[in-house]
Amino acid sequence: MTIERPIDPARSRSVLDPYVDRYAARTAGMTASEIRALFAVASRPEVVSLAGGMPNISGLPLDVVGGAISDLVATQGPVAMQYGSGQGVPELREQITEVMALEGIQAHADDVVVTVGSQQAVDLVTRIFCDPGDVVLCEAPSYVGALGVFKSYQCDVVHIEMDGEGLVPAALRNGIRAVKAAGRTIKFLYTIPNFHNPAGVTLSAERRPEILAICREEGVLVLEDNPYGLLGFDREPMRALRADEPEGVIYLGSFSKTFAPGFRVGWALAPASVREKLVLAQESATLCPPQFSQMAVSAYLANHDWQGQIKQFRELYRERRDAMISALSDLMPVTVRWNVPDGGFYVWLTLPPGINAKAMLPRAVTARVAYVPGTAFFADGFGSSSMRLSYCYPTPERIREGVRRLAGVIEAEMELHSTFGTDTAELRLGAGVDSPGTDTL
Amino acid sequence: MTIERPIDPARSRSVLDPYVDRYAARTAGMTASEIRALFAVASRPEVVSLAGGMPNISGLPLDVVGGAISDLVATQGPVAMQYGSGQGVPELREQITEVMALEGIQAHADDVVVTVGSQQAVDLVTRIFCDPGDVVLCEAPSYVGALGVFKSYQCDVVHIEMDGEGLVPAALRNGIRAVKAAGRTIKFLYTIPNFHNPAGVTLSAERRPEILAICREEGVLVLEDNPYGLLGFDREPMRALRADEPEGVIYLGSFSKTFAPGFRVGWALAPASVREKLVLAQESATLCPPQFSQMAVSAYLANHDWQGQIKQFRELYRERRDAMISALSDLMPVTVRWNVPDGGFYVWLTLPPGINAKAMLPRAVTARVAYVPGTAFFADGFGSSSMRLSYCYPTPERIREGVRRLAGVIEAEMELHSTFGTDTAELRLGAGVDSPGTDTL
Repeated sequence: MTIERPIDPARSRSVLDPYVDRYAARTAGMTASEIRALFAVASRPEVVSLAGGMPNISGLPLDVVGGAISDLVATQGPVAMQYGSGQGVPELREQITEVMALEGIQAHADDVVVTVGSQQAVDLVTRIFCDPGDVVLCEAPSYVGALGVFKSYQCDVVHIEMDGEGLVPAALRNGIRAVKAAGRTIKFLYTIPNFHNPAGVTLSAERRPEILAICREEGVLVLEDNPYGLLGFDREPMRALRADEPEGVIYLGSFSKTFAPGFRVGWALAPASVREKLVLAQESATLCPPQFSQMAVSAYLANHDWQGQIKQFRELYRERRDAMISALSDLMPVTVRWNVPDGGFYVWLTLPPGINAKAMLPRAVTARVAYVPGTAFFADGFGSSSMRLSYCYPTPERIREGVRRLAGVIEAEMELHSTFGTDTAELRLGAGVDSPGTDTL
Repeated sequence: MTIERPIDPARSRSVLDPYVDRYAARTAGMTASEIRALFAVASRPEVVSLAGGMPNISGLPLDVVGGAISDLVATQGPVAMQYGSGQGVPELREQITEVMALEGIQAHADDVVVTVGSQQAVDLVTRIFCDPGDVVLCEAPSYVGALGVFKSYQCDVVHIEMDGEGLVPAALRNGIRAVKAAGRTIKFLYTIPNFHNPAGVTLSAERRPEILAICREEGVLVLEDNPYGLLGFDREPMRALRADEPEGVIYLGSFSKTFAPGFRVGWALAPASVREKLVLAQESATLCPPQFSQMAVSAYLANHDWQGQIKQFRELYRERRDAMISALSDLMPVTVRWNVPDGGFYVWLTLPPGINAKAMLPRAVTARVAYVPGTAFFADGFGSSSMRLSYCYPTPERIREGVRRLAGVIEAEMELHSTFGTDTAELRLGAGVDSPGTDTL
């Protein structure tokens, strides 16, 4: 005979996760990002995903890439398949200096550290600089992947206002002073000067020296993240912040958007003393970045007109940007606002007052369109009336269809709002209808 | 006219590293490892390196690998070159469960997380579990790369005694109790049960259940690192600790020694709750491990007799082990001791009393032979009378020549010691002769 015992709440909790009391304090800050969750949504063919930031690599010459890589195996296989240097393949680091020269950067390959995508560069820089409680300054909004890193290192993010010309210098100066006045330590300013993810804006040429001067005066290191800089639609690449400030800027670059993300090859260019620490951090993290990936990227750069390929990418993304902007103009309610990016992947869209983008997402997914709610791009809960729309991946026709569906969802939400006169967030979340499963949100 | 000013010491320090006061506390623990420094030595052709742990991949069928990879680009290029899942490619994770089945592990692909080499798995596990000051138990000696990770997360390593049968159960129990009695928190036991790096020993079949029972009773999680398990010379793979303890063991594996390290593909198999945290940590660290590398490894496994290849590797390493052991027997002074590994890459050698392996290294390099001093494998300064010799990479002839040179150096050191009757450490370091440049040590 068995006796039914009352459930011990402690035990019941431990059945869910027996390790719950053992994790590091930093692990509490690791939660599933909204972008991650949306990968699942984006993969359903009936949904038009305006959410993900996957580059459109359909135009890559597979024969060239395949040929370069099989030559690599045949001629340098034993080197490509072996361990390599923690800093990265020297020849690739030379080529990286040539890529950066397009943005006015004069650098030596010795100061380049190859990373597993530029995401890992953000991780390693944060690892060597940030103690728990340190402050990192970020644009408002900022890249969700970087915010996740800062959170996982228990940093406090302080957002700095942007406008149509990028980071606002006066806001930066005030922000720095306020943080210092509170007795807090600022470790760096994390900024995406070109074709910002998610805001779509670019730091103007006039403001660049001003931002650098403020950071120099205030002793704030700049972490310049530039995955999209070569993907401008209407003009040549702008001069990088790093080009005018070699000692005060750590520059991050990536081949994920100008070639392909599947190799996970990014880099950091840093002042020599910082670069030495980054190499040690890389060795501790991975021993060395993948030698095969690096040599594959290097072979592609050596054997292909990579600048011509980037030109094709610019055309492809410009066409999609145009499709999105014209669809928005044609189809959205007049109270919805957005910017017109001149490069990169993203449009930042703001809903009329009272409409909550996060609360609306389940209804949008039901209507077979996906986006990323603005709250994902703030460390502090702001952004609920905004969303990021990406035009990089779908065809122009699908983009228009996605915008049409989204406009319908917004109109319905506005109608609901005008009928009930309340913030739809509480209403929808309370009602709990149309909510997708845990694997999709 | 310019006025010469006296040097400001603060400024002079800042010229060396202007960021010296800005790094995180953890960065103080990041220093160049002895193994890293030795890469530079090993690459000079006139030196016989018995230092590095580079696998000997000269036997890999380049035509098969090249063919599989160019097929991959042609047939699945757009997938292989795109972003993927943070957890890793599903098909590869299935194949990984088949690899682990050779060691008695029954696992589901859902519980596998692909990492950038198993080094990154050590990093991610430590990241999610360890706060500064937490204790990690390690064998004495232990793998230098893992010790570096634990140091970079500001953990305290407590070493547990090994003998010819591996970790000593009584020492483990006493160690755990002593740490607990001191009020410290143990986060896990890090252990390499098979063909230990650097000690060359294997945990006996009899001890395995005993070690697991102690950890279960004491509530200590086990981190089982097993890069060499399939590389035994005389018998089938032993049953993994994880095979008998699915909930209390995180198992780490790697393709670096059974296929090739240049793809940087390793993995962690973890209980579901821990695995979820590892995926989040991986996304924060890299977004996703390299898709191309993973699919290349997967294609190799699918298209090649990988188990036959491992058999060839076992023959190759057995031949080299034999060369090293017979050279040691023939050439070393009788007071030098070593073990005979039955798999893996390493011999652990102990010098007669009074001879310091670290202090002797510059003289050895001058005599054109390199090894890793034992101190690299201890977190606490022990190991000065020992060294790790690896036989994985050089030819049998070169191994014998390297041992001959090393024996000469040891004999000279012993003579010096018997003449001056003092620990040679102080003498050599004080004299500062025969010291290679900073780029080689």
